[in-house]
Amino acid sequence: MPQSNLWFTELQNENLSIGLRIEKTLHSEVTPYQTLDVYETKQYGRLLVLDGCVMTTDKDEFVYHEMLSHVPMHTHPNPKNVLVVGGGDGGIIREVIKHPSVERAVLAEIDGAVVEASKKYFPQIAAGLSDPRVDVQIVDGIKYVEDHPDTFDVILIDSTDPIGPAVGLFSKKFYESVFRALKSDGVMAAQTESPFVNQELIQNVMRDVRGTFPISQLYLAHVPTYPTGMWSFTMGSKVHRPQDVQTCRVQNTRYYNAQVHHASLALPQFVKELVES
Amino acid sequence: MPQSNLWFTELQNENLSIGLRIEKTLHSEVTPYQTLDVYETKQYGRLLVLDGCVMTTDKDEFVYHEMLSHVPMHTHPNPKNVLVVGGGDGGIIREVIKHPSVERAVLAEIDGAVVEASKKYFPQIAAGLSDPRVDVQIVDGIKYVEDHPDTFDVILIDSTDPIGPAVGLFSKKFYESVFRALKSDGVMAAQTESPFVNQELIQNVMRDVRGTFPISQLYLAHVPTYPTGMWSFTMGSKVHRPQDVQTCRVQNTRYYNAQVHHASLALPQFVKELVES
Repeated sequence: MPQSNLWFTELQNENLSIGLRIEKTLHSEVTPYQTLDVYETKQYGRLLVLDGCVMTTDKDEFVYHEMLSHVPMHTHPNPKNVLVVGGGDGGIIREVIKHPSVERAVLAEIDGAVVEASKKYFPQIAAGLSDPRVDVQIVDGIKYVEDHPDTFDVILIDSTDPIGPAVGLFSKKFYESVFRALKSDGVMAAQTESPFVNQELIQNVMRDVRGTFPISQLYLAHVPTYPTGMWSFTMGSKVHRPQDVQTCRVQNTRYYNAQVHHASLALPQFVKELVES
Repeated sequence: MPQSNLWFTELQNENLSIGLRIEKTLHSEVTPYQTLDVYETKQYGRLLVLDGCVMTTDKDEFVYHEMLSHVPMHTHPNPKNVLVVGGGDGGIIREVIKHPSVERAVLAEIDGAVVEASKKYFPQIAAGLSDPRVDVQIVDGIKYVEDHPDTFDVILIDSTDPIGPAVGLFSKKFYESVFRALKSDGVMAAQTESPFVNQELIQNVMRDVRGTFPISQLYLAHVPTYPTGMWSFTMGSKVHRPQDVQTCRVQNTRYYNAQVHHASLALPQFVKELVES
């Protein structure tokens, strides 16, 4: 069979692109918040795209989902109540409920269409959404956080890029609201783009998180389908230090392990200088 | 000024591509060994391309050059004589001679055109080639290694992809020859592609290096312009362990530091399983 010559090309910024050969377009819609497309790719399996940007793929989703969740989840000694803001595909929730201590995990996603598309096209990513401990709320995450003070042990911010509906998730006001929604020893983490191309954003987020939480830490992972492949996450913590984690409490991971936890905290010299300046 | 609509697009494999907006084509030639192009890009500065593949760029070259050199160079307690096979751009040599212990560094590059193009278009990468300790040899690296038994403390294999002139650099016979060219406590390292797309190659190299050297270790770095951004290096050592390194002996690095040294040895679970299988 001749192969398809259809390519998905993401302009990651105006000078940089990634291309993935497409076998088939599975779904396209305009939701009240964004455009949503699902493709079958040759390289990475199924691909979820929001507003033209790669959100996740079958083949590399484990990196982002494991690393945004397990590094902060292990930093907290006993996470019972967890909130995920955004993350409608369910990948973060799937990882959160691998922790035996978790009693309740709330997903606050603004766009119900993302949840529905994930259940239909990415069943192995959405798998956790039907767990009895999981409460899926189609709501504005910013308002949900404001309305639930002193409630969560861990809050994970799985946002899109800081444009469109996600802008408010990258503000000091929001981090302060997250601080209030956390219990007295709570931990938060957010995805914060690439140190190779989003340096100003990372500096702003670090300044705001450092100004809000006693403990702050940038950490890194390799996500092939995101711009430059080097992705950063920013953690804020009231009491617990990510450096103190000793063992891996979850099984069946493909990226995270105890060594990777600590390795992710070691910053290349230019990133170290970026966040310390 | 309207911006250029010329793009350099590398088909990283048949289903995956990276695109870089080009301001200007600076140089194009067909050497006796390969095609060689130099472009000015908007995102990464100048770009060196061999046989259509990204070799290095001004903006991210420091990652690859620091990590292929400093991890094995620090693993050896006192490297005096160093050989670089390939690496005609000079980036590895530049890092090697940052080590105060180095007395002689030989570059064995098969294609003199790469050296000349680098001197002309990438002066900051080629800078080390004029150092009095450096001996640039335009020769077949495989033969050079065979002809110099028991000579070097460290050998670094900075090859292109395992096609064309570089095929022989990924064979057990070559690693055995490298073993013989090293002194009794020598260390070698080679670039060995991406664990996301070149799994079979990495398994073969690890098997061959493990079958040749008492100590072997895969390690990783983030190289944005290489396929998937996650790049691997394979180290073989006769005596010294990379885990035993305690301090960083070089200054003016932008990626490498003592924490990054150890972090690079921590393998994500799927990579760990790949090299242990």
